[in-house]
Amino acid sequence: MDKQLKRVALLTSGGDAPGMNAAIRSVVLAAHHFHIEVLGFFHGYNGLLDNDPTLLDLSSVNDIIRLGGTILKSARCPEFQTPTGLKQAANTLVKQHCDALIVIGGDGSFTGMLALKQYWNGQLIGIPGTIDNDIDGSDATIGFSTAVNTAISAIDKIRDTANAFERIFIVELMGRHSGHITFNVGVACAAEQVLSFENFSADNQKQTLKQLAQEINSLQQTRHNSYIMVIAENVWPGGATALARELKIRFAIDSTACVLGHIQRGGSPDAKDRVIATKMGVAAVQALINGESDMMIAEQNSRICSVPLEQAIQHQKKVNPNLVAAHENILALTAQNQC
Amino acid sequence: MDKQLKRVALLTSGGDAPGMNAAIRSVVLAAHHFHIEVLGFFHGYNGLLDNDPTLLDLSSVNDIIRLGGTILKSARCPEFQTPTGLKQAANTLVKQHCDALIVIGGDGSFTGMLALKQYWNGQLIGIPGTIDNDIDGSDATIGFSTAVNTAISAIDKIRDTANAFERIFIVELMGRHSGHITFNVGVACAAEQVLSFENFSADNQKQTLKQLAQEINSLQQTRHNSYIMVIAENVWPGGATALARELKIRFAIDSTACVLGHIQRGGSPDAKDRVIATKMGVAAVQALINGESDMMIAEQNSRICSVPLEQAIQHQKKVNPNLVAAHENILALTAQNQC
Amino acid sequence: MDKQLKRVALLTSGGDAPGMNAAIRSVVLAAHHFHIEVLGFFHGYNGLLDNDPTLLDLSSVNDIIRLGGTILKSARCPEFQTPTGLKQAANTLVKQHCDALIVIGGDGSFTGMLALKQYWNGQLIGIPGTIDNDIDGSDATIGFSTAVNTAISAIDKIRDTANAFERIFIVELMGRHSGHITFNVGVACAAEQVLSFENFSADNQKQTLKQLAQEINSLQQTRHNSYIMVIAENVWPGGATALARELKIRFAIDSTACVLGHIQRGGSPDAKDRVIATKMGVAAVQALINGESDMMIAEQNSRICSVPLEQAIQHQKKVNPNLVAAHENILALTAQNQC
Amino acid sequence: MDKQLKRVALLTSGGDAPGMNAAIRSVVLAAHHFHIEVLGFFHGYNGLLDNDPTLLDLSSVNDIIRLGGTILKSARCPEFQTPTGLKQAANTLVKQHCDALIVIGGDGSFTGMLALKQYWNGQLIGIPGTIDNDIDGSDATIGFSTAVNTAISAIDKIRDTANAFERIFIVELMGRHSGHITFNVGVACAAEQVLSFENFSADNQKQTLKQLAQEINSLQQTRHNSYIMVIAENVWPGGATALARELKIRFAIDSTACVLGHIQRGGSPDAKDRVIATKMGVAAVQALINGESDMMIAEQNSRICSVPLEQAIQHQKKVNPNLVAAHENILALTAQNQC
Repeated sequence: MDKQLKRVALLTSGGDAPGMNAAIRSVVLAAHHFHIEVLGFFHGYNGLLDNDPTLLDLSSVNDIIRLGGTILKSARCPEFQTPTGLKQAANTLVKQHCDALIVIGGDGSFTGMLALKQYWNGQLIGIPGTIDNDIDGSDATIGFSTAVNTAISAIDKIRDTANAFERIFIVELMGRHSGHITFNVGVACAAEQVLSFENFSADNQKQTLKQLAQEINSLQQTRHNSYIMVIAENVWPGGATALARELKIRFAIDSTACVLGHIQRGGSPDAKDRVIATKMGVAAVQALINGESDMMIAEQNSRICSVPLEQAIQHQKKVNPNLVAAHENILALTAQNQC
Repeated sequence: MDKQLKRVALLTSGGDAPGMNAAIRSVVLAAHHFHIEVLGFFHGYNGLLDNDPTLLDLSSVNDIIRLGGTILKSARCPEFQTPTGLKQAANTLVKQHCDALIVIGGDGSFTGMLALKQYWNGQLIGIPGTIDNDIDGSDATIGFSTAVNTAISAIDKIRDTANAFERIFIVELMGRHSGHITFNVGVACAAEQVLSFENFSADNQKQTLKQLAQEINSLQQTRHNSYIMVIAENVWPGGATALARELKIRFAIDSTACVLGHIQRGGSPDAKDRVIATKMGVAAVQALINGESDMMIAEQNSRICSVPLEQAIQHQKKVNPNLVAAHENILALTAQNQC
Repeated sequence: MDKQLKRVALLTSGGDAPGMNAAIRSVVLAAHHFHIEVLGFFHGYNGLLDNDPTLLDLSSVNDIIRLGGTILKSARCPEFQTPTGLKQAANTLVKQHCDALIVIGGDGSFTGMLALKQYWNGQLIGIPGTIDNDIDGSDATIGFSTAVNTAISAIDKIRDTANAFERIFIVELMGRHSGHITFNVGVACAAEQVLSFENFSADNQKQTLKQLAQEINSLQQTRHNSYIMVIAENVWPGGATALARELKIRFAIDSTACVLGHIQRGGSPDAKDRVIATKMGVAAVQALINGESDMMIAEQNSRICSVPLEQAIQHQKKVNPNLVAAHENILALTAQNQC
Repeated sequence: MDKQLKRVALLTSGGDAPGMNAAIRSVVLAAHHFHIEVLGFFHGYNGLLDNDPTLLDLSSVNDIIRLGGTILKSARCPEFQTPTGLKQAANTLVKQHCDALIVIGGDGSFTGMLALKQYWNGQLIGIPGTIDNDIDGSDATIGFSTAVNTAISAIDKIRDTANAFERIFIVELMGRHSGHITFNVGVACAAEQVLSFENFSADNQKQTLKQLAQEINSLQQTRHNSYIMVIAENVWPGGATALARELKIRFAIDSTACVLGHIQRGGSPDAKDRVIATKMGVAAVQALINGESDMMIAEQNSRICSVPLEQAIQHQKKVNPNLVAAHENILALTAQNQC
């Protein structure tokens, strides 16, 4: 064990995700076990600029495993991205005698960690916490599973109305620049159509619209049923609302747009997110003890490991091709058979 | 008992509401008990025009008490509102030997029933099924309780993110022209502000915006916390999205608009909605047996009774003044104390 | 306004109920509005004996409206029921300069309040918080609605298995000495049978067993389906487990007993419980300001009022006869028609 | 593609699990796509003895992806395990012109499939559907994820009461002969103790009881808090109830036993279970087309594959050692630090 490791700084950054609190708890429990202090900084990287941290003792993490959001709060922090901001953050870490920094967040947060390296030479460990699951090197990120489950519960409700009215709904899901949420939700909700980065390019928007209209018209003629299309945010210019409007204007197709929005971020984490958050929190402390730095804790094939932060932010992780294929299969079967 | 009562027509009309299936089940069980047949017509009043009903036996309602939506489906039906449509509907009821018609729906559906009187002299009984709770003469409508609970579950999730980011959210709720959902949800979610028909008039939009901005600025200066405003759909021109934009443009206040939308309509009904739907379904059949017509089954002070359909559609029912007062009190306390 | 009202003692007592925290929050908000301090005592009446209260400021009740359990904790307190204990409690209230005591709890808690009158002359106000709904003078108690909803969610899951196996389940529900939970859950879950204090006496246990066996056998012969009986705790000697065993031994009927147990007590309160808790908390403070004492805040026909504590503990409140009748009707219909 | 593959028999067997219906839907969709008929047999293997199947067309699986239980029902079938029963089942498959049999179930169901081989030479494919996750060769079984989530939602509610009363709860979970549910739930609920096959042997029952008592007493002296122990069914003679009694009798420790029971089996499947069920159903049909037999569809490292049925029933699958270790770590940390 590194004898220097007395005090660790901890913060959450980027969009909040269910399970961040479970990870905070786990870091604090593990650190205390090894007689390491944990300083919690609030509001993401702003906390490093403000230099107003709190010592996180065991009572501060009691029973937080099941809470959504983050007790350390989060925020955007443009100043942190400047040399001045980075220096100030480094100063805080030095003044507070922190030997290491653990950040729970997404790719933007990890990019920030790497930038800090120029100004501070403590150990840096990231924990992937984002509902978007768009982090390379880890099969899952904390919050993703819960967000998918929240979305399917919402769409199950929409399905009731869609069935009652045999109506078309276009449901917009979060995910920023990847279709992890959209594809999983699409398969799990038996969505009649999925529109995401993996199967649609903005270049052929016009053609896609025509194909969608044809498919919808074909299905509606041969059966009377509900039709739910899930679309990833940012994939269609103007989102679900614009798509619904274009289907109406150009093809006289009535549909209802629903933007699920921020309900996908919050809520009590599900079992999967609590379990990986707990494992990852312990692993982060152990990685520090092992002398690791510039690494992100990851889950690969149900095993916890660590991968370089540099790798985590590559944006190369694809939606599992098996899932896309499964969806395409099911869609093909469904469409062909008008079920 | 009216010896003529052999066969009852049943349909659901208007927006679907959780508990409609529970009411269908209850009507069918009660009718069968009294050896009355129930003919289910699909797609609201369209079913009367299409004349393609189904005999609802006991197995058709097995285990549907817990399902959202409506197995009889629903739809708008502009044709029904014409003399031709009404005559055609009356013809169907005659041809199908129906002695009575039970409609589960809202005020529009009941207005349709009354119009049908000119062309058909069977017994007419309404059951109030709408999430909006905007039916006179009944304390509660089927679906209202579930919709409120669905909304608070959603806003609890939004609160997690609002807390994490100390951010302002403006959440738009359903309710058409009344604030029953909005006020109940507002109190139940500890919303920092409620904007509904009961406490806001479109005439003083400009002034309201200014007051809101002042209140928000005042709160944000003295505390750092989340701020959730719930607003009724249709109360603000352009809804939550427009309100958020105006706060930004005119007062530089950042906020996030969420339109909860159709998730409020579906889902498994809660206990309250299942229980009143079950009671009302039985009561509807008993009212027919008692020879009643042109009446709506209602709940008043936890007792089931019937009120004239004419009364039910008056749009006089106010949000419980106690609730508005309670909310105003709590708001006043909250605002004044910056809690 | 009573000029003496400067400081109010607050505690929760008896079984915890969802919504107790909402009531605590409401009391604190209202009291602060009127410049009244609130001292929170922990662990029910033990807190008065221990004399270690906490001043509840606004931040201590922030966002607790949605939490199950009670932040003031609860506990049994046999010592409080002795003259020594009562004197000690009274001493604490005097020492702490409390002008009034608000207790959120059930009939046992209210009996304790009345006993305290002999030793202390401050104002006493009760707020009905119990999942059992067995408090006279109030249509609803805080926690009841949530407990019923929790139970139906659980039984909906059991129904899935009961349907898959066409099996008989006997589900035991809480309620101590009344069938409020059992009857509401029974109707809401379309239970094939309800066994509660209102429709069963321990005197005719043998005959009831025979009738149940005959009914079950009759139903099972004419249909193949699930069968769920809900029974109130304490109604059958040995509970659901014993009943299942007796049906097996005496009538060779296989069934599975499920005791839902403590999951009925916890969880985030539903809208109804949050709203009445909020109203009641405000009303309790207003009642104190109005000079009331020895009263319980109540809800009658959707209006908040106060009733004498003496009346609240009479154990005269019956399950709504309309509900029992509705259930009996539905059961009769169901049984007779083998649906 | 095997030209002979015209008709596939499908049944669900063993304990029902959330996601079985999703798998049924997926098999039917995929089969129809390839012009293969699917005959559904009811009540597990009884359906093969009864020879009263139903042709499953697309409409029969519409919208069932989200339903708990199984529309094909399930049941135990001792007769099937006799040579007579097996011959009769084989006769039915021949008479019905079935080329293959797909069984969704657990290890007992797969053992039955292998026994059938002696009497019938059609293709046999298993799909792992059981909440217990005790199937070798597949990382996950259909229903496991949902059961774990259902249990943590229940225990979160119990935690509220445990916190309010600082009380000890012993919660018994399903799992038959393995601790997959128990360990995942234990970690996810921050259980203070986990008792399962992996960390406890019946041989040292007496010693374990003493250790538990010491640990509990030690914790209770140093902190005041809730304590939740989750235990696997069948691990302790007499279960949670007996353990609670023994702690009371031998060590005067008060605790409350809760047997979660059958609520863990039902309910709408979560996203994970819907997705793997959908993938596995398609894969089962594709395996048949590829000429495979005596295989079980499995998920390994997020990829769908097939493994020999012989291997699936070995009962060698261990709870992920990482999870046990993580739990032990967290427990150690927690216990040592009295958090």
